[in-house]
Amino acid sequence: MSEFVITTFDWVPETPRGYVRDIRLRWALEEAGLAYRVESTPFNNRQKEHFLRQPFGQVPWLSDGDVFIFESGAILLYLAERSTALMPHEPLGRNKVIEWLFAGLNSVEMATVPWSFFMFSDDHEATPGRKILDNFLQSRLHHMEQELAEREWLADDFSVADIVMVDALRLVDRFNGLEQHSASRAYIARATARPAFAKAHADQLAFYAAADSKLNL
Amino acid sequence: MSEFVITTFDWVPETPRGYVRDIRLRWALEEAGLAYRVESTPFNNRQKEHFLRQPFGQVPWLSDGDVFIFESGAILLYLAERSTALMPHEPLGRNKVIEWLFAGLNSVEMATVPWSFFMFSDDHEATPGRKILDNFLQSRLHHMEQELAEREWLADDFSVADIVMVDALRLVDRFNGLEQHSASRAYIARATARPAFAKAHADQLAFYAAADSKLNL
Repeated sequence: MSEFVITTFDWVPETPRGYVRDIRLRWALEEAGLAYRVESTPFNNRQKEHFLRQPFGQVPWLSDGDVFIFESGAILLYLAERSTALMPHEPLGRNKVIEWLFAGLNSVEMATVPWSFFMFSDDHEATPGRKILDNFLQSRLHHMEQELAEREWLADDFSVADIVMVDALRLVDRFNGLEQHSASRAYIARATARPAFAKAHADQLAFYAAADSKLNL
Repeated sequence: MSEFVITTFDWVPETPRGYVRDIRLRWALEEAGLAYRVESTPFNNRQKEHFLRQPFGQVPWLSDGDVFIFESGAILLYLAERSTALMPHEPLGRNKVIEWLFAGLNSVEMATVPWSFFMFSDDHEATPGRKILDNFLQSRLHHMEQELAEREWLADDFSVADIVMVDALRLVDRFNGLEQHSASRAYIARATARPAFAKAHADQLAFYAAADSKLNL
């Protein structure tokens, strides 16, 4: 019997709460109905033990007995191979989920996260490189809008690909970057209305609220 | 018997030559000794048929009989599942390659490609968002340097994870961004010295040189 353990930061500032990447794992595990628990690693003063598990000093990582995996994309694929609630296991359906999983991480999130650096710092200066980055994001959002206007989920059914894509698009929506993209907003709304997302999100917020209490913040 | 077909652009400007992402597929197929051929889709005036195969209007995509896959990360994983020259097939070795494959695409390339937008446009203005992006890249490069100082390849043997990581780091090296990262430069050097890379790179350059000739450029 597997015992899945998610390791995330013991505390984070307000800004990333609700967006720390452990939410992707919590969401997937809730969708699959797989038991798991959550452990923590210090946010401040990251030690050698942390880098042994996650080479960039980030979170989350997953353990499954004596198997340890880092990178949320890799972890989602690992979980998806263990539950048809996250990915069909026949080859064609599996391929479709995997291509969209990579698309979320490498075609969409590669635009959304760097763009968010400028938004978080209220930086709106249209320098030449910034224009390329903004156009890159707008092109990705435009094509995603067309895809999402046509269907409910990226593959035939809800999958780990949607977990990643929705989480990437939520970051754009946070800065009102989807005002002209109604299909994308509707997609986020129907995904985040799922009980598994609601529980994952609430649990992450509660986890950090409890961390504040311990610190008497 | 599989017949792998890579589809790439029929022509590209000088700047991306040697870096178009079909190189990752060519390289993998050469490493695995799998037969393939290369077809093309118009770079200018991208048509509906293109978007049906690649939703963002990018390249490459792969066909294997009547299976079509987009996203170079997904394609590399698909090929890796068909050749132990690209990934071991026992679970622990496979996990290690997959986590590093995602790390290359989502932790490293998410920094390198947006940073390259600023470098390609000779944009060195240190706006607040730009500082975050630069620090993000430097942090990733610092941690990669520590990883690469310790070993030859990311997993136990050369794998698709190295194909992605080397290609992401080559883009930084192109702008002399690895001057303080000797282990990373040595890693690129030993990877690109492999006959499979040399052939993939030469073939891509020859493909676009032939495209110029047809256009009488």
